[in-house]
Amino acid sequence: MNRKLRMGMIGGGKDAFIGAIHRIAANMDGLIELKAGALSINPDIAKDSGRSLFLDEDRTYLDFKTMLEKEAAMPADKRLDFVTIVTPNFAHFEPAMMALDKGFHVVIEKPITFTLDEAKQLKAKVAQTGLTLLLTHTYTGYPMVKQARQMVKNGLLGKIRKVWVEYPQGWLSKMSEREGNAQAAWRTDPKRSGKSGCMGDIGTHAANLAEYISGQKIDKLCADLNIMVEGRALDDDGAVLLRFDGGAAGVLMASQVAAGEENALKIRVYGEKGGLEWAQHEPNTLLVKWLEKPTEILRAGAGNPHLDAFATHNCRTPGGHPEGYLEAFGNLYRNFALTLQAKIDGQQPTNAMLDFPGVDDGIRGMAFIDNVVKSSASDAKWTKFEI
Amino acid sequence: MNRKLRMGMIGGGKDAFIGAIHRIAANMDGLIELKAGALSINPDIAKDSGRSLFLDEDRTYLDFKTMLEKEAAMPADKRLDFVTIVTPNFAHFEPAMMALDKGFHVVIEKPITFTLDEAKQLKAKVAQTGLTLLLTHTYTGYPMVKQARQMVKNGLLGKIRKVWVEYPQGWLSKMSEREGNAQAAWRTDPKRSGKSGCMGDIGTHAANLAEYISGQKIDKLCADLNIMVEGRALDDDGAVLLRFDGGAAGVLMASQVAAGEENALKIRVYGEKGGLEWAQHEPNTLLVKWLEKPTEILRAGAGNPHLDAFATHNCRTPGGHPEGYLEAFGNLYRNFALTLQAKIDGQQPTNAMLDFPGVDDGIRGMAFIDNVVKSSASDAKWTKFEI
Amino acid sequence: MNRKLRMGMIGGGKDAFIGAIHRIAANMDGLIELKAGALSINPDIAKDSGRSLFLDEDRTYLDFKTMLEKEAAMPADKRLDFVTIVTPNFAHFEPAMMALDKGFHVVIEKPITFTLDEAKQLKAKVAQTGLTLLLTHTYTGYPMVKQARQMVKNGLLGKIRKVWVEYPQGWLSKMSEREGNAQAAWRTDPKRSGKSGCMGDIGTHAANLAEYISGQKIDKLCADLNIMVEGRALDDDGAVLLRFDGGAAGVLMASQVAAGEENALKIRVYGEKGGLEWAQHEPNTLLVKWLEKPTEILRAGAGNPHLDAFATHNCRTPGGHPEGYLEAFGNLYRNFALTLQAKIDGQQPTNAMLDFPGVDDGIRGMAFIDNVVKSSASDAKWTKFEI
Amino acid sequence: MNRKLRMGMIGGGKDAFIGAIHRIAANMDGLIELKAGALSINPDIAKDSGRSLFLDEDRTYLDFKTMLEKEAAMPADKRLDFVTIVTPNFAHFEPAMMALDKGFHVVIEKPITFTLDEAKQLKAKVAQTGLTLLLTHTYTGYPMVKQARQMVKNGLLGKIRKVWVEYPQGWLSKMSEREGNAQAAWRTDPKRSGKSGCMGDIGTHAANLAEYISGQKIDKLCADLNIMVEGRALDDDGAVLLRFDGGAAGVLMASQVAAGEENALKIRVYGEKGGLEWAQHEPNTLLVKWLEKPTEILRAGAGNPHLDAFATHNCRTPGGHPEGYLEAFGNLYRNFALTLQAKIDGQQPTNAMLDFPGVDDGIRGMAFIDNVVKSSASDAKWTKFEI
Repeated sequence: MNRKLRMGMIGGGKDAFIGAIHRIAANMDGLIELKAGALSINPDIAKDSGRSLFLDEDRTYLDFKTMLEKEAAMPADKRLDFVTIVTPNFAHFEPAMMALDKGFHVVIEKPITFTLDEAKQLKAKVAQTGLTLLLTHTYTGYPMVKQARQMVKNGLLGKIRKVWVEYPQGWLSKMSEREGNAQAAWRTDPKRSGKSGCMGDIGTHAANLAEYISGQKIDKLCADLNIMVEGRALDDDGAVLLRFDGGAAGVLMASQVAAGEENALKIRVYGEKGGLEWAQHEPNTLLVKWLEKPTEILRAGAGNPHLDAFATHNCRTPGGHPEGYLEAFGNLYRNFALTLQAKIDGQQPTNAMLDFPGVDDGIRGMAFIDNVVKSSASDAKWTKFEI
Repeated sequence: MNRKLRMGMIGGGKDAFIGAIHRIAANMDGLIELKAGALSINPDIAKDSGRSLFLDEDRTYLDFKTMLEKEAAMPADKRLDFVTIVTPNFAHFEPAMMALDKGFHVVIEKPITFTLDEAKQLKAKVAQTGLTLLLTHTYTGYPMVKQARQMVKNGLLGKIRKVWVEYPQGWLSKMSEREGNAQAAWRTDPKRSGKSGCMGDIGTHAANLAEYISGQKIDKLCADLNIMVEGRALDDDGAVLLRFDGGAAGVLMASQVAAGEENALKIRVYGEKGGLEWAQHEPNTLLVKWLEKPTEILRAGAGNPHLDAFATHNCRTPGGHPEGYLEAFGNLYRNFALTLQAKIDGQQPTNAMLDFPGVDDGIRGMAFIDNVVKSSASDAKWTKFEI
Repeated sequence: MNRKLRMGMIGGGKDAFIGAIHRIAANMDGLIELKAGALSINPDIAKDSGRSLFLDEDRTYLDFKTMLEKEAAMPADKRLDFVTIVTPNFAHFEPAMMALDKGFHVVIEKPITFTLDEAKQLKAKVAQTGLTLLLTHTYTGYPMVKQARQMVKNGLLGKIRKVWVEYPQGWLSKMSEREGNAQAAWRTDPKRSGKSGCMGDIGTHAANLAEYISGQKIDKLCADLNIMVEGRALDDDGAVLLRFDGGAAGVLMASQVAAGEENALKIRVYGEKGGLEWAQHEPNTLLVKWLEKPTEILRAGAGNPHLDAFATHNCRTPGGHPEGYLEAFGNLYRNFALTLQAKIDGQQPTNAMLDFPGVDDGIRGMAFIDNVVKSSASDAKWTKFEI
Repeated sequence: MNRKLRMGMIGGGKDAFIGAIHRIAANMDGLIELKAGALSINPDIAKDSGRSLFLDEDRTYLDFKTMLEKEAAMPADKRLDFVTIVTPNFAHFEPAMMALDKGFHVVIEKPITFTLDEAKQLKAKVAQTGLTLLLTHTYTGYPMVKQARQMVKNGLLGKIRKVWVEYPQGWLSKMSEREGNAQAAWRTDPKRSGKSGCMGDIGTHAANLAEYISGQKIDKLCADLNIMVEGRALDDDGAVLLRFDGGAAGVLMASQVAAGEENALKIRVYGEKGGLEWAQHEPNTLLVKWLEKPTEILRAGAGNPHLDAFATHNCRTPGGHPEGYLEAFGNLYRNFALTLQAKIDGQQPTNAMLDFPGVDDGIRGMAFIDNVVKSSASDAKWTKFEI
């Protein structure tokens, strides 16, 4: 391919947190350029945002439908290759369906849709169109997460027995949604966020990470969701006992009222021969705790001979140059872009390129929400994980 | 008081792990001297152990009954003040009852007894005799654990919402009980250990720590116990969802098949205004995570003006001289000894001296075992914590 | 400004480590686009690199002189704004001088030139042309490094007494320059690297960081440089005692034979009231050790109210999203770009924008090399730092 | 041996910091009992201290000479085996000489004497009497320090190239000696402390540790000592460049004005094949950084099969029970006691028992002080390490 891929963005206008992240992630490796946007439903913000992103005025749209229509009608050498959807949760489904219908590949910020049913429709649409969908479950973009997954897959730890995953945040410790915090307002609002707050927002990340690394799927669960800040409309805290289909037992803890915590996502996985520990706050390190050898510290780094090729493929720098959240996010975009490039060039993407989250992760995420909410309301200990 | 307290020991012969620990803990501060022992049911080991501990031959007994009889008959200036019981779990109750009956104060290695019913009888006996009982829940002897408790008690964190406590070990990852490991053999044997393995051995420590720091009692729970090593007779792993009587929600995780872990006991407690984090592997540090200030690192140390008096009372050295497990254990003995000294001298022990675990902790520990085993066998989500 | 800044690159062809880093750093924030390159003195690599970077064929040059000539002749709406020079050390000076002469702003990979004399000429040229020069001393781009500097500047630590800075690497523990390692080959070659190896390569970073944070300049020094791998042509290890002009004493340690280390750059600064500790391997954390308060953990993050505005200006994400080396590098480019934008728009850049290393840092770096080499060869304890 | 060793103490009355530490260390393992003391030159304190330590009144002496005379005259089954000297530095020599003359083994708190010349006389006396002397360089009592030494000795790291040792404290950041701090008062007083403050107090520990682990002796040095708190009489800060007799280069940093630091003693040693890192604040961990393998975390613990026998010999508990400063101190006493026991029993102590610091360490420590003071005053870069 002799050009960058052309991206359009839906949502993500000025001051939107996650839109800016997507743009940095897409820019980083020089494979993608932002060419169009329907950046806000507020026309002034949409135009202003377009200008500050150096978009052509005629590709700064005021709504996504117009954008998708007009872009679909453009000549092949100008037309967008894909669109990124970074609107609030309730507004993912419609633009995603239309984009696929118009022939655009799609990137969607997690959670994939507002309901499980929408997710299933989206899956059918992806299958029908043969297009590619990236769901930005960021944490699986970290190289040492990929290392962990490969080590499990290659049997280095023996049969996996335990999975402990936790995601403590503290930013909803107060009733911030009534104090002018826009992020807090929509994330705690069932109409915009969905049927779960904390579990939908960060519990799904934890569940996705647990399944990704362990290679096992959640089979049944026992959830205890809480509203810790009186008057809040959605759960801001919870814990879930897990049983996986490969025999592992697990615990998932997520909280947005763990006062003083940032995004302390951490996972530990134990097998017969050893355990793995990875924490987002020090993402370049993977602790490997062996039953019969001293613990080893594996460190991210391009060219590191002690790492699996899936890990080194997702490093940009040699060891000792800490890479972080934006690089992990960038890895999702980079693998998505390399996959599209390969397809456009008529080549088969490698397995390492194809290793990014997609519509199936989205469906499991929506089902996770449904199942934990159902379990939390139930007096029975175990709830079968149903999709 | 113008002399050391005189200790006798039941169990703890050569090669017994915990007996040696008790002796170091008792020796450390020069307040106690070992004067007699019924150190083993094997006469050769008993004698040999007595010699290597420099006991007088005539106070090296071959069984605990003889010891208690003979010692009780000694003159006041020679007679033991207290006995320490470090036999396996099933053999705690009988010597403890007899020792109290004979007028000796008692130290018991945790768990207090084999059954909850025995624990209740022991409580009645303690009340009846007016003697003092120390139960060695070691971890509450750490100064930074006391600091944590006092900070919660003094309201510095606001109302407590969350308690996460975990105790991963890896040493039972294999079927060691059939490979000549004596520790593994009795701890996984229902006849000697009781109705729970992992939860009885280390889950009780975690539960005790959680209640001690949070100042709240477990009110109901939902347990999932596992036998991860096929063929084992008792649980070697488990997780428990908790609800506390003060409104906090919690999770307790304990495992002896977390391969590669040592004794990675860790607790996190979150309130409205901040959170606390303490881990046994770095016991001199308490992280205080504030909602609206930067995280602070509190460090153990005698004379540290930023610590509560309950914490500094339990430090032997100024900051920067790491104290560990043996000092925490020693703190239990030291406070027990200071309490006995005060009583013998007709004085009132201070609250800091009296801050050691006793028979009520033992009863809650036994009830915890009963309740988690019951819950784990139940299909209902919640089991009321009953004593 | 309604467009991205246009960058050309000299050096940095395929497989060159640092060129790729510069491109990611420049791409990241969407303010800059790579438009031209003289990427290699090998024509095939130059062309191939240009293609893989999606450069126009007619702006893929085979030598830097042609590039600068041709680009200077282009119309204003197409012409490069600046050039980035990422050739080996000996080949910085000539293209930099020519670029300035042709009216281009300049970015130079550190060290600025091959000799101190060249650096002085470059400074004169910058002054004469009024153009802007960025020298990529990466580490001062980290937000918590800026936080440290501001805390010192604002007197929070009182008078600074001590500066300890260290930069251990292990990658030259063996004679890699003779085993086909191209990086090792040029960095240990006096003809391409200059009169110092380790001190020139990483010691200068450490010195720059020490002066940047402490706000004091090295006034005299006592150096001990070593060649630890027999047969090597340049120092691969060294230590330097420092005295600063503001009264602080310091130690600088740098080594490329600290086997097993990555880029473990770390700095500690102590004043009358407290100390600071920052390490590159955990760059989002700044430890603040107070004399009379508990240690605080300051954490990077946009919007963090506990940070100085110079720090938050250099964060892209809220706390808990680890940013790393590439973001720090990106901060240099971002501030350079914001400064150029402001100048092009006829506005005054803010102090936070202007806070990037430039030609004066380059001169001090070259002088540092000269002075440590001179000191190491001297029998006198102290060598005055001369420029 | 069928009894505990009998210890007498000179100095160490109530409120003396280090005397209490020695007693805990001596008590811990049940091998030693305190039987006599000349605990203070103040008679009231001496008597009061004796009472609180449960000493017999007639073995509570008011001066060391009387104690040594009287104890020497006692029958063999009552007589002291050894005396511990914990007076201020200037008052070590005289009691030590007399104790040896009277036939007592000796323990001396570091530094061994007030001057190098005294240390040499003491060495001659030890040789002449054939008695045993323990000098309490505490840090070499840590099991992971012993592990480090053995790994170097066994060649696992190849030839040692670098030694970095540092000992930052902050407690003298203010003029505490004039604010009623008794510790500060004598330690900064040349009449009581000697010719160096910081280097004598903690620099000697760092130097001892460096030589102990590296197996190399300091051959020449270049020192820069500072008085950072105006008006202080002795150095409170310093740095020393080192060259070792085995070819290693090193840096020693010590400060008592590193505000906010406790006793952050840390050492790093690098050889051709890897490096070691040990820090007193986490003493149970030894990082082993391999050039060609992932870093390993070695952990203290009795029975740990990955450790050298010299390390496990100095652990009291299995892995995961943190041991600290008091246990390290206790190891010195334990090995000293085991050595005396063996000698008394007519047996040869093992090498592991004999591995405690003695008079030769004391001489090197005194010479270190002399040499750094001399170097610091000199304009020449290097000062030969002379004894």
